[in-house]
Amino acid sequence: MAEFKHLVIVKFREGVVVEEMVKGMEKLVSEIDAVKSFEWGQDVEGQEMLTQGFTHVFVMTFSKKEDYATFVAHPSHVEFSGPFSTAIEKIVVLDFPSVAVKPSA
Amino acid sequence: MAEFKHLVIVKFREGVVVEEMVKGMEKLVSEIDAVKSFEWGQDVEGQEMLTQGFTHVFVMTFSKKEDYATFVAHPSHVEFSGPFSTAIEKIVVLDFPSVAVKPSA
Repeated sequence: MAEFKHLVIVKFREGVVVEEMVKGMEKLVSEIDAVKSFEWGQDVEGQEMLTQGFTHVFVMTFSKKEDYATFVAHPSHVEFSGPFSTAIEKIVVLDFPSVAVKPSA
Repeated sequence: MAEFKHLVIVKFREGVVVEEMVKGMEKLVSEIDAVKSFEWGQDVEGQEMLTQGFTHVFVMTFSKKEDYATFVAHPSHVEFSGPFSTAIEKIVVLDFPSVAVKPSA
């Protein structure tokens, strides 16, 4: 079955300590078993025309969509949503069953 | 070493046959050995406030940043960029070394 992914890309507000946000997210996923894996990254190319000002990517992977629903409803997630929302200037969120075309060897 | 990821999120123009775009991309990655893996997905939640109108995600994974550079310069990629650019209404591209926090079991 396809994995379900929760993709978040953001531009943080000026003055936000990104490391603290990342730590908060790491703590979050460590507390919620429904999250199968978590990865994140910061754009290093910095081409404004392509990034549209977005700088960070966060991807959470779930075995199935139901696990994503469990994650969203989890008290730790609800609690984290507040400070996270305050920290961001803009955001795009996409939730999708992942189609793997050329799987890792 | 951290994998390097090329993330593209798009909103396609009206009338674009998305399946053809996806097929083109599948062909592209199958032709370029530098691409370690490729996955894509279509948002299923459809919350405009979160998606900002973006609908599709494409993620290419490379063993190292140099492989990404090889991919970008590859003739097949250059050739594909034309029709792809024409097909999209808006796009965000982020390129980043991926930090895996809770790796898949």
